[in-house]
Amino acid sequence: MTLLVVGSAALDTVETPFGRVSGALGGSAIYFSLAASLYSPGQVKLVGVVGEDFPREHLDFLTQRGVDLKGLEVVPGRTFRWEGRYDYNLNTAETLATELNVFADFHPRLPQEYTKAKYVFLANIDPELQLEVLHQVKAPELVMLDTMNYWIEHKRAALTRAIQAVDLVTVNEAELRQFTGTYGLFKAAGEILALGPRAVIVKRGEYGAALFCRDDCFTIPAYPLAEVKDPTGAGDTFAGGFLGYLARVGECTPETLRCAVVHGCIIASFTVEDFSVNRLRRLTWQQIEERFQEFRRFTHFE
Amino acid sequence: MTLLVVGSAALDTVETPFGRVSGALGGSAIYFSLAASLYSPGQVKLVGVVGEDFPREHLDFLTQRGVDLKGLEVVPGRTFRWEGRYDYNLNTAETLATELNVFADFHPRLPQEYTKAKYVFLANIDPELQLEVLHQVKAPELVMLDTMNYWIEHKRAALTRAIQAVDLVTVNEAELRQFTGTYGLFKAAGEILALGPRAVIVKRGEYGAALFCRDDCFTIPAYPLAEVKDPTGAGDTFAGGFLGYLARVGECTPETLRCAVVHGCIIASFTVEDFSVNRLRRLTWQQIEERFQEFRRFTHFE
Repeated sequence: MTLLVVGSAALDTVETPFGRVSGALGGSAIYFSLAASLYSPGQVKLVGVVGEDFPREHLDFLTQRGVDLKGLEVVPGRTFRWEGRYDYNLNTAETLATELNVFADFHPRLPQEYTKAKYVFLANIDPELQLEVLHQVKAPELVMLDTMNYWIEHKRAALTRAIQAVDLVTVNEAELRQFTGTYGLFKAAGEILALGPRAVIVKRGEYGAALFCRDDCFTIPAYPLAEVKDPTGAGDTFAGGFLGYLARVGECTPETLRCAVVHGCIIASFTVEDFSVNRLRRLTWQQIEERFQEFRRFTHFE
Repeated sequence: MTLLVVGSAALDTVETPFGRVSGALGGSAIYFSLAASLYSPGQVKLVGVVGEDFPREHLDFLTQRGVDLKGLEVVPGRTFRWEGRYDYNLNTAETLATELNVFADFHPRLPQEYTKAKYVFLANIDPELQLEVLHQVKAPELVMLDTMNYWIEHKRAALTRAIQAVDLVTVNEAELRQFTGTYGLFKAAGEILALGPRAVIVKRGEYGAALFCRDDCFTIPAYPLAEVKDPTGAGDTFAGGFLGYLARVGECTPETLRCAVVHGCIIASFTVEDFSVNRLRRLTWQQIEERFQEFRRFTHFE
């Protein structure tokens, strides 16, 4: 199944207690694509924008990984840049600087062949842009949306319309509580489901993830890691593994949804083992499968 | 298997966003006993102390539940009292007042028949008292210890000796990090295991629990609850379900340890649904079994 993603392509400067990278490859659409392309090789189509400063080697790397970049515009100006820092509690980033640059005037235009995509991921961008993309896709089968505190606060109406238009919503606990004004996860997820989506996937960082559907609930811990270096991209690669898995198996049932959550956690666990997309560069399908089996052993009880 | 617990019997005053109780039945040995007695009826022996103000009805209730109170001294003076408050983040209590009262001069003396106990829980009390109890038990098969930040800070040497003498240690994440000075759970748990215990059980509140052994790791989320009213006693009933289950099955293998962790989470999930021990009062074995099956469904994937 073809898998379309719209989101940011960025150059990130990130500091954690375990090191620092400067101007490294990042952005939600990039992280998503690299994860999803491991599950659905040759199926991922990226929509986004970069400036003329975006290193050629990054484009080559993505193309090598089979990510379709026809929808990635290269325009005059500087690429979107984000600078952040994490302390020992790696669950939340402190944003030190955001330069929108070429992202400020971005309006996604889908190449003709992209409009037939079946699976769509609207990464964390302005919900009005998420809606613009959705209107250009002709008959999507499964659309997933991510968002963040900024849009919940400043674009609530558009975000609500976007949520009403999608099948799956992925948020973290704080975002879910902020959007609904409800503390309890069960109840808060129910309020999102009441808007239309068939499932809400709550990302809990080092504590795993939970899936809420109208009549089902699934909860798993994170894959236990000895070492975490940089949590940047965990959420976007979670989404990439999740939707990449569903696109791979080609159906969205209660059973495949659960496995998709596990795969989201697995791929996110690899992502955070190194800075930027470094771990994803050398990640193989066999390693994913091995960790899936290992995760099963770590969580199994009779 | 007989199951001995030493810990506090208390009258608690607790406030959460969902209500308040004043002078309610509480204390680590009480919570533990009520949970464990559901798993191992007639096997739980309690060691502790209360004052003359301790309501007769509480003693009757415990006896009714088959908890052996021969080791519970009733002495002149007031019972240990704790007053605490939780905000919406129900994971950590703010202690408003602690009155040690009769607990201040407590030195556990085991009735003769208690000294033959096979399973022992040293609840969160002064590690010197934990050691005093341990020295009186003749040939325990399995000893588990709980502790807290206060003892880690003020009685580190005694606590280390106690940890060296037990089989299982149960702590929360913050305590594990504080005791070892190590942030990563894997590594921190390894440092405890290096002292002697065969397993470390890390309690993660609303995020479940993890079990670390020398060559095994098991991790599970919490049972997903629609509503939490009062987290007091969650950790002690976790220990009660955990050790009560092991005493029930009569063996401690990698498999039974995992199931014990699940049962700890299950019984803790009931505890927090109401204030004080109220939910435990009306809890039945059938409800525990039903929730265990439900939990299996909530966490199962193919």
